[in-house]
Amino acid sequence: MNKISLQALKIINNPKGNIIRCLRNDDELFKGFGEAYFSKISHNSIKAWKKHEIMTLNLCVVYGKVKFVFYDDRENSNNDFKEYVLSDHEYTRLYVPPKIWFGFIGLSDDDSVILNIADMIHDDKEVSRKEINFFSYEWSSD
Amino acid sequence: MNKISLQALKIINNPKGNIIRCLRNDDELFKGFGEAYFSKISHNSIKAWKKHEIMTLNLCVVYGKVKFVFYDDRENSNNDFKEYVLSDHEYTRLYVPPKIWFGFIGLSDDDSVILNIADMIHDDKEVSRKEINFFSYEWSSD
Repeated sequence: MNKISLQALKIINNPKGNIIRCLRNDDELFKGFGEAYFSKISHNSIKAWKKHEIMTLNLCVVYGKVKFVFYDDRENSNNDFKEYVLSDHEYTRLYVPPKIWFGFIGLSDDDSVILNIADMIHDDKEVSRKEINFFSYEWSSD
Repeated sequence: MNKISLQALKIINNPKGNIIRCLRNDDELFKGFGEAYFSKISHNSIKAWKKHEIMTLNLCVVYGKVKFVFYDDRENSNNDFKEYVLSDHEYTRLYVPPKIWFGFIGLSDDDSVILNIADMIHDDKEVSRKEINFFSYEWSSD
């Protein structure tokens, strides 16, 4: 699938601490396992912009609250910025296909923690980067 | 490998928030991707005892601090309890092969968050459970 997609995560309630199912290999959006890593983002810090040519991302916010912003500059795109807020109050997973620019801002007072389960091992050759002001998006912590 | 193994995680420092590499598909201990899920554990709560007959676990503490306790009751085991404390102050990954009993206790004031990357999808038929007092381990939050 070549579109961004947001999935609710299944939660198994437990009085000692819930269990949250993140990704299974029989999920229709599962593309294979390359690498899992955490990205932390401090309050009001912004990491932007980045684009993967090949890698598909599966993003979950494990702790805290993060706003992700996407910009698709390909032909046939409507060139809107798309925003998704993920948090540990309502667990979701964001499926992000390659070739879309993205950035994110930390919204919690504490550092937030993002898990990415990617379908390939990191390869800097497939990553493009732009300065934060390259796209005219107004970052805010609302 | 049929022994428990603790691996340090690679950390990429970033002033806006570090990146912590959790697991890659070329890791010598990687057995395949079945399912990723988070388990939360509240302060001083204990989840014990459980044993997987088939599943291999890869455990990381993403947030907080957790003590894991293992008990190998197979022949040729020395029948000791093995303890590992994992926390977000010193990121590690715990490789846990099947057929070993385990439990864990939350050591942070906040709920701790554990990530498990398992080599198979959850199947209750391969899971054994015992009451917390079945093994004579003295749980403490030290």
